[in-house]
Amino acid sequence: MLRTKFLDYIHEQALFEADDKILLTVSGGIDSVVMSELFVKSNFKVAIAHCNFKLRGEESELDAVFVRVLAEKYALPYFEKSFDTEKYASQKKITIQEAARALRYQWFETLIKRQNFRYFATAHHFDDQIETFFINLYRGTGVKGLRGIQPKAGNCVRPLLFATRDEITAYARKQNLQFREDSSNRSDKYLRNRIRHTIIPAMESVKKDFRTGFQKTFELLTKTEIFINEEISRLRKKIILTDGELIKLPISELKNRSVTAFQLYEILKPYGFGMDAIMKIPETLDKTGKFFLSETHQLNIDRDFLIISPLGTENNETFYINVETKRIEKPVTMGFEKVKSPGAIKIIQDNHVAQLDFDKLEFPLILRKWKKGDVFVPLGMTGRKKVSDFFSDEKFALYKKQNTWLLTSGKNIVWIVGHRIDNRFKIVKNTKTIYKITLK
Amino acid sequence: MLRTKFLDYIHEQALFEADDKILLTVSGGIDSVVMSELFVKSNFKVAIAHCNFKLRGEESELDAVFVRVLAEKYALPYFEKSFDTEKYASQKKITIQEAARALRYQWFETLIKRQNFRYFATAHHFDDQIETFFINLYRGTGVKGLRGIQPKAGNCVRPLLFATRDEITAYARKQNLQFREDSSNRSDKYLRNRIRHTIIPAMESVKKDFRTGFQKTFELLTKTEIFINEEISRLRKKIILTDGELIKLPISELKNRSVTAFQLYEILKPYGFGMDAIMKIPETLDKTGKFFLSETHQLNIDRDFLIISPLGTENNETFYINVETKRIEKPVTMGFEKVKSPGAIKIIQDNHVAQLDFDKLEFPLILRKWKKGDVFVPLGMTGRKKVSDFFSDEKFALYKKQNTWLLTSGKNIVWIVGHRIDNRFKIVKNTKTIYKITLK
Repeated sequence: MLRTKFLDYIHEQALFEADDKILLTVSGGIDSVVMSELFVKSNFKVAIAHCNFKLRGEESELDAVFVRVLAEKYALPYFEKSFDTEKYASQKKITIQEAARALRYQWFETLIKRQNFRYFATAHHFDDQIETFFINLYRGTGVKGLRGIQPKAGNCVRPLLFATRDEITAYARKQNLQFREDSSNRSDKYLRNRIRHTIIPAMESVKKDFRTGFQKTFELLTKTEIFINEEISRLRKKIILTDGELIKLPISELKNRSVTAFQLYEILKPYGFGMDAIMKIPETLDKTGKFFLSETHQLNIDRDFLIISPLGTENNETFYINVETKRIEKPVTMGFEKVKSPGAIKIIQDNHVAQLDFDKLEFPLILRKWKKGDVFVPLGMTGRKKVSDFFSDEKFALYKKQNTWLLTSGKNIVWIVGHRIDNRFKIVKNTKTIYKITLK
Repeated sequence: MLRTKFLDYIHEQALFEADDKILLTVSGGIDSVVMSELFVKSNFKVAIAHCNFKLRGEESELDAVFVRVLAEKYALPYFEKSFDTEKYASQKKITIQEAARALRYQWFETLIKRQNFRYFATAHHFDDQIETFFINLYRGTGVKGLRGIQPKAGNCVRPLLFATRDEITAYARKQNLQFREDSSNRSDKYLRNRIRHTIIPAMESVKKDFRTGFQKTFELLTKTEIFINEEISRLRKKIILTDGELIKLPISELKNRSVTAFQLYEILKPYGFGMDAIMKIPETLDKTGKFFLSETHQLNIDRDFLIISPLGTENNETFYINVETKRIEKPVTMGFEKVKSPGAIKIIQDNHVAQLDFDKLEFPLILRKWKKGDVFVPLGMTGRKKVSDFFSDEKFALYKKQNTWLLTSGKNIVWIVGHRIDNRFKIVKNTKTIYKITLK
């Protein structure tokens, strides 16, 4: 019965073709053991992969042994990999669960490519979807967070998504299948487990057949999501300009089209901005200089554009230029020459070229971004000026300000690269050697 | 504290202005009693309205007395109306709860217009929204069913929507307010009550502050709904043609624009079609003749159009034409004359005019729609032909077929109105009196 439903579901959802090679991802728990049995009984071409996340000491090792033996029993190719999940989590500053998820999906993707599998299969079932629904609901969510798990996403297929936990348990019992109990499932440590043990029984006690409503809701919301994505992608094409690494949205376009906070939120989703931040944007379109941060990007409200730039480590990066350096490629391409001064001063009217008095420079020179408090003496002036004021006077957009490099010598700025040198380092009559820098 | 929140909420949501006249709809239960107290304490201009649905015998009467006394205590204008809710429900074939809802909203709308109120206020609170969320989830729903209750919709404002049930209870206790207990609230008879008593405590036991997630979700989904509605209304304008009572969607447009089932569902929502029916439409666009029914409308897949027509009782209606009838206006305008035959047959080449042999007719004539099995002898033929075949041969679209009237005499069809008379009733050489019918 479960196997018939399983085959029907694969067919209905067009998950894969009968002769596709499928990599089964098996933890050793009841769900993935049942999935393996169903695949093997149905004579699909499969192999088994197991991740050892090393999170539960001896238990983790026994899980791995169990799955290896399972693969042997079925005479299936077997792949296993161990991960230092805790280390990865702390490096990436994510939770253990997020780390385990990232690690396993990365490995599965690599594995299917290397081993020539068509898809990898996970054993998510219907009740997992309901749990995910509630997890997201507790956090506050939108359509995407409520529409359930997709049966097919990229290289991943989920052929047990039709089955309830009870159906899987009943099948395992009937087929007398052995599986590993994950002790962490029994505790209410994780929100998911608390939902599983409290909310699902409550939902069921109110209405035995509560899954039908979820099923309909998932279907309708999945369609809703597709609709929204299509409309947003159409809008995105109309209003997004890219400029190297920068994403630019012309403010005039946003205004003309009366783009709403919701539309902006959807457009900017790939850059990780939350609803709370985005909500404020439509009212602050005229407040040049406002900016918002996501985990991965920065959004600046500039004079004419919303500008989204990836957060690099770049902002704190410094690049050294030694006295022998002839050329650098990073962060920008520049050439460096020492030229004997001809005596007469020959000004080069090109912002891409800086001519400095070599003897006044202190090597190594350092290329870095603007910092608060930076001052310099602009060429032609005698007094010091804040670099930020210089930027303002020159009507630099915020992103330009953030992407402009400063060349420094000791504590002094010698060149706002591409814009203005410092008056104190200019070549003068008695300059012996000209240090000529050319920005390519 | 609750009153401060109440005033803040009214302000934030711009529910109404301080000097707007508001009609408070008061059942006598704790929520509406607290609402009344908050309004009165805040010196808004209010009156009280109470519906007696006569559903709980003596209890209903005591509720009405209670609210009347409450209005007297506050010295507020008081309006009361009794309804035969059960009768209304059975007449309209709706549930008692739906009937009560329809009756009260109708009355409130009338009342505020007549009494010159700006809005009527209901005492829905935050937990009501959560209950509604789950009711819809149990049934299967989309964004609209999950986005909560709107604080302001048409002439209705809901200024307690920010408050939890516990906050309302605490306020009532602190202010020592008297209120009526609706005994039906205590039973688990209704899904809403079962949700209130089972799901909400379960949600809270998993995470005390579970309402924050709901709040965020409601906000995001409300924005999502607005977005969808705007996109759909734009699409609707592009593809909907109206033709009298008929709504027509050109199939070529649906195909060119690759309109999805979801878009169709949203477009056709006002006509009450469910997702299940609409889902089938995109695949059946070429299956002329398919039709779908909603509670209020019929959707026909015609050669070139999807045609939506209101369901009338019209289809079963019959109209009588007596021998003296000179003119009818319903269901179509027609004139009837008896003309002495000039002897020679003068054929009138106009489908809007029928000339019949008066002496062959059996009065009253009857005008009715086509029924399965109808046959007639088309003018110029001798054999009988099915009316449905005649329709097909004439390439009648389904809606035209359904909107064509047949004039019958006894058991015979004498005229497919506006199209073809029956050969047996045509005027012949020895016709004495011509019965001339003119379709205006």
